[in-house]
Amino acid sequence: MNLHPVTLIGAGPGDPELMTLKAVRRLGEAQVVLVDDLVNPEVLAHCPQARVIRVGKRGGCRSTPQEFILRLMLRYARQGWRVARLKGGDPCIFGRGGEEADWLALHGVPCEVLSGITAGLAAATAAGIPLTHRGVARGVTLVTAHTEDGSAPQWAALAQSGTTLVVYMGVAKLDEVAGLLLAGGMAGDTAVAMIENASLPAQREIRSTLSGMCAEAAAQRLRSPAILVIGEVAAGRKFGVAPLVAEPTRLAAQA
Amino acid sequence: MNLHPVTLIGAGPGDPELMTLKAVRRLGEAQVVLVDDLVNPEVLAHCPQARVIRVGKRGGCRSTPQEFILRLMLRYARQGWRVARLKGGDPCIFGRGGEEADWLALHGVPCEVLSGITAGLAAATAAGIPLTHRGVARGVTLVTAHTEDGSAPQWAALAQSGTTLVVYMGVAKLDEVAGLLLAGGMAGDTAVAMIENASLPAQREIRSTLSGMCAEAAAQRLRSPAILVIGEVAAGRKFGVAPLVAEPTRLAAQA
Repeated sequence: MNLHPVTLIGAGPGDPELMTLKAVRRLGEAQVVLVDDLVNPEVLAHCPQARVIRVGKRGGCRSTPQEFILRLMLRYARQGWRVARLKGGDPCIFGRGGEEADWLALHGVPCEVLSGITAGLAAATAAGIPLTHRGVARGVTLVTAHTEDGSAPQWAALAQSGTTLVVYMGVAKLDEVAGLLLAGGMAGDTAVAMIENASLPAQREIRSTLSGMCAEAAAQRLRSPAILVIGEVAAGRKFGVAPLVAEPTRLAAQA
Repeated sequence: MNLHPVTLIGAGPGDPELMTLKAVRRLGEAQVVLVDDLVNPEVLAHCPQARVIRVGKRGGCRSTPQEFILRLMLRYARQGWRVARLKGGDPCIFGRGGEEADWLALHGVPCEVLSGITAGLAAATAAGIPLTHRGVARGVTLVTAHTEDGSAPQWAALAQSGTTLVVYMGVAKLDEVAGLLLAGGMAGDTAVAMIENASLPAQREIRSTLSGMCAEAAAQRLRSPAILVIGEVAAGRKFGVAPLVAEPTRLAAQA
């Protein structure tokens, strides 16, 4: 029997309209859909025909072990069903998409991976923060603070990189992240935005600084999952509301 | 007169099906659509009702100056039209989305920015490269090699960051990028993938190493625009085809 490829679908950051056309098409074709718990359930409107199974494991509390999810996927695929695995954001940005595709390949099941909009980029845009901005930030680094294997990013090098830092799964480790970046030479008054519920109507932004973010998050009861944006671009203003930097005034004078 | 907000739309990486539902909706509502030249013209099928104006400036050759595009946007918005600006990838990742939103705000025109899938992330996924992978890369840095203002990223710090590097607009600066990363202590045998025509049927991948990439790009006539992926995750194999790392075998043994 020829098996259908399992499709790993990036459902995007939360706003169901930030899902791609291809994701919608594959959902409409699926017979079994395994859904992570960070996925907005509204997107399931695109697969009324499918059997929907809620799986997923929030950082830390592992409601369904990864092994179990993988075997479930494999079992349905081997039975000949069209299986879709719906994941929050982009399957390949802290989503273990590559691992799952590898594992399926090892077991003889082909796999397709569909990019989605990752929460960190969407959160910043929805908050009016330009992650890259000429003269302010020449790049952006996406990094996770939560590591199952205990390994850690090179925070000291990141502090010196001149890129905006976007930290996923950082709420439980604010203290550690701030400490390591400060130790790496990042200024305590570096701007920070903490963004809950990225791209949803309930999106909430807390602005602070590197040295103040732990206290501010506690005071405002920041809750996981949230995205941290660390860098000058996160300072105060929102683009399109009030200018972020004075730079566009040259153009303004000409208009 | 109440002006309609100008919508800056991320058209995604190339594959017209990797555009979001919200982008499609806004295109369908638009009366005037300004299109950058990195946008796949197929997506214009979503706005048959609109007046389409091709603008855009490829890195280096500036076919339409930014000032002219901004004023065109402003003029149509002030005339009361529903204006959409369609940009390749994500408007806020090296797309000057924040600047344009700021500039419109300065001139009294509201603006909405819609995230799109940025080419660097989609290119890697389409090439079977997991930009983040447990035990291999704890994060990913998006950076541009082309800078109008002559500023440069901190390549030495990036070389030490332990993140996968995704370089946009790097084809003309391969030599410089390789030199600076090598000088920053990155190993010459670090894997590199160079990806042309991200996410399109014509996508082409050239695998090499940091010290070999210039010669290899020349030999294979790599053409702009292309994405460079620099880091261990870009080594040889593709996920879902053959496993990237031996790590999933523990699970395999249990299955």
